[in-house]
Amino acid sequence: MDFEEMKERIDCLYEERNLTELKNYLNDINFADMAQLLENVSDERKRIFLFRLLTKENAADTFVEFDADTQEKLIHAFSDNELREVLDEMYIDDTADIVEEMPASVVKRILKNTDRETREAINTILKYPEDSAGSIMTPEFIDLKKDMTVEDAFKRIRRTGLDKETIYTCYVTDASRHLIGVTTVKELLLNDYEDIIEDFMETNVISINTLDDQETASNALSKYDFLAMPVVDMENRLVGIITVDDAIDVIQEENTEDIQKMAAITPTDTPYLKTGVLETWKKRIPWLLLLMISATITSQILTTFQNKLAAASVLVAFIPMLMDTGGNSGGQASVTIIRSLSLGEIGLKDIFKVIWKEIRVGFICGASLGIVCFAKLMLFDRIVLGNSAISLSVSVVVCLTILFEIVAAKIIGCTLPIIAKKIGFDPAVMASPFITTIVDAISLLVYIAFAVAILRI
Amino acid sequence: MDFEEMKERIDCLYEERNLTELKNYLNDINFADMAQLLENVSDERKRIFLFRLLTKENAADTFVEFDADTQEKLIHAFSDNELREVLDEMYIDDTADIVEEMPASVVKRILKNTDRETREAINTILKYPEDSAGSIMTPEFIDLKKDMTVEDAFKRIRRTGLDKETIYTCYVTDASRHLIGVTTVKELLLNDYEDIIEDFMETNVISINTLDDQETASNALSKYDFLAMPVVDMENRLVGIITVDDAIDVIQEENTEDIQKMAAITPTDTPYLKTGVLETWKKRIPWLLLLMISATITSQILTTFQNKLAAASVLVAFIPMLMDTGGNSGGQASVTIIRSLSLGEIGLKDIFKVIWKEIRVGFICGASLGIVCFAKLMLFDRIVLGNSAISLSVSVVVCLTILFEIVAAKIIGCTLPIIAKKIGFDPAVMASPFITTIVDAISLLVYIAFAVAILRI
Repeated sequence: MDFEEMKERIDCLYEERNLTELKNYLNDINFADMAQLLENVSDERKRIFLFRLLTKENAADTFVEFDADTQEKLIHAFSDNELREVLDEMYIDDTADIVEEMPASVVKRILKNTDRETREAINTILKYPEDSAGSIMTPEFIDLKKDMTVEDAFKRIRRTGLDKETIYTCYVTDASRHLIGVTTVKELLLNDYEDIIEDFMETNVISINTLDDQETASNALSKYDFLAMPVVDMENRLVGIITVDDAIDVIQEENTEDIQKMAAITPTDTPYLKTGVLETWKKRIPWLLLLMISATITSQILTTFQNKLAAASVLVAFIPMLMDTGGNSGGQASVTIIRSLSLGEIGLKDIFKVIWKEIRVGFICGASLGIVCFAKLMLFDRIVLGNSAISLSVSVVVCLTILFEIVAAKIIGCTLPIIAKKIGFDPAVMASPFITTIVDAISLLVYIAFAVAILRI
Repeated sequence: MDFEEMKERIDCLYEERNLTELKNYLNDINFADMAQLLENVSDERKRIFLFRLLTKENAADTFVEFDADTQEKLIHAFSDNELREVLDEMYIDDTADIVEEMPASVVKRILKNTDRETREAINTILKYPEDSAGSIMTPEFIDLKKDMTVEDAFKRIRRTGLDKETIYTCYVTDASRHLIGVTTVKELLLNDYEDIIEDFMETNVISINTLDDQETASNALSKYDFLAMPVVDMENRLVGIITVDDAIDVIQEENTEDIQKMAAITPTDTPYLKTGVLETWKKRIPWLLLLMISATITSQILTTFQNKLAAASVLVAFIPMLMDTGGNSGGQASVTIIRSLSLGEIGLKDIFKVIWKEIRVGFICGASLGIVCFAKLMLFDRIVLGNSAISLSVSVVVCLTILFEIVAAKIIGCTLPIIAKKIGFDPAVMASPFITTIVDAISLLVYIAFAVAILRI
């Protein structure tokens, strides 16, 4: 799996034009590595040359792994014949994924070079809403009938299994394609050849609806340790399956999306180095703008109380520390809750349990931070640094603010994501940056209130 | 899959003591759902009663899904006989997971009730470092010899497959257990009964070392779309496999861990509602303390330039806005880079490409935010709100600071995670909260420098 070594070997064989050896070497490489290697070949003509040395099956597997950009370039270089060969070997869900990414002219060429059945299947998949279970399923699965014997089943698998993405989970359907049972190749192998499927199939079949979210489907697949999740339509007719490798991709995509949202970035599924500067700017600027403008509130608060602060100018020095501490505390709570919501560990019904827990956590976090801060101000800042402006009462104001703002930050941090979920928003957008803005305003007001009360300014 | 319905039905059958019906109903429920249902039964006696109605196989599957707490309680309630039955049905990697979580007395009882072979296998797994591939693998896999025919292979699978977690990927080993090939049940089914395995097995086998990180193993499994990843020792001897369902769990765990670290929380894999208040406090307080204390720098900066700020007190009003904007910009960059590093989209070698991109993104983000801020200050704050203290030069100072701090925040945000990775730290700890502290200090210095230069204070 050493890329540099593989690259050198390929380059060397390519320079020597040692085609037999090169062909053997290339076809021995796993398709996922192959795709990575070919994407890094900058010479377009060399890339297509190498690609053409792959066997039909390897070519198709590798093609699916390329990014959209490389796929488009290769399709332009393909003859109709070559394109047809690659498409023939591909699974329908992969073809549908590619069609979705390509410009209209390329889509036309792809559809022209697939048979009618495939074309119809692709169209069906593309009609489902983005991010729905229907949009990522494949219509290619093994279906059996309940009165088949194990021997019949194996015959059917041998006959039709070659083009199926997975053959290990077999679905039992009735005459109108309703999903009535499920079994596995493992079960089939462990039963006798003459056993009837109906007698040992699992009839309590867990399935997902075409319109369910792809995340729901993937999480369910992971929960039940399935290799494939059956997808049914409104009438419980089996229309496709989601395979475990696609489910993992969805899980990773959704994680990336959540992480981006938590960091106030509009989600994108393009890898970092392939996103242009302007594209990256477009994903980041909306939240920065919104958050900057909402910070007008803090400016207004400080402007309003300008005279009070001028009377005790030492207080200004702690504003950044108070803002950061509040933001960090709120961020911890919100991110924990967002993740727990997305893993299904907590639900809307737990809101009061969550708030009660966060109040207690906030209180002991606030108290411990407040005590440390008090000691630091009185011993370090006042004595070591000799800052005589930091009086006992100033320290008390700062530390009481810490206690209060942390409790407030924890409550806000845990409540907002749950409320967002309740009203149908994505909880992930309620993460630290958003909560920071709210906590900032509250902290400043608390700070000034304590200052007025204790310092009598 | 309606939990409330299932719960009611069970309660009803339980009240009626309708054992036959109850037994049938319980054994029809998927083990993952079953575990969730039983965990929510608060009456200990009722739980063990219901659990005892499960078939041996269902009982073991359900038991594995319970949290450690419930497992421990059940083990205490089990007779030795019952415990042995459950352990017999469990896969070795699952038993090892449980042994790891239990107190010594329970571990002793578990080991006493397993056979010698299992005990040795568990001990081997437990000896591998935490989070290594070896610690999550299972030693139960299908191994074949290269001179077997397809028929021999199926015979072997039928004979030994029952206790194996997965039978679909079959590994070909030589006499000293070296991994020399791999094939799948699909391949076996699609070849003729008399074909020899050596003729069609894949010899370019991708495997993982026992000491590799579990995350590396899971990512590789996902990259290559495997159902199981073979794990070999230093001599390339096959010692176990990691199955796809465990790989998904690792991926989710690592994602949770990254997200927690990014939010300045010490990672934990206990679900939110099961973590006590003190436990949660312990996970959150270290970072809050560290970040609060490091904010001493900003306090020092503000104290040092106290007189300058007093001369233009309007500047104080914008400090929270500047801090937040810098923190958010840096957070966007760092989180994007952390995620790309963890998905393997970028590596150490890309550092200059990354910095160059972030400088450009930072510049146009900074320029656009600066312009909007300038317009807002001059039109809204000055004219609409009538704040005459906001002069043209004050606005220029604020907006130039925004431009500079954003570029700085982007550079720091993208550099620190890569450097962390380089020196062997987890990049995720270099996320927003940490970067905020650094960016705050830089922003303040830039702000004051501009103020001194432009406002001549």
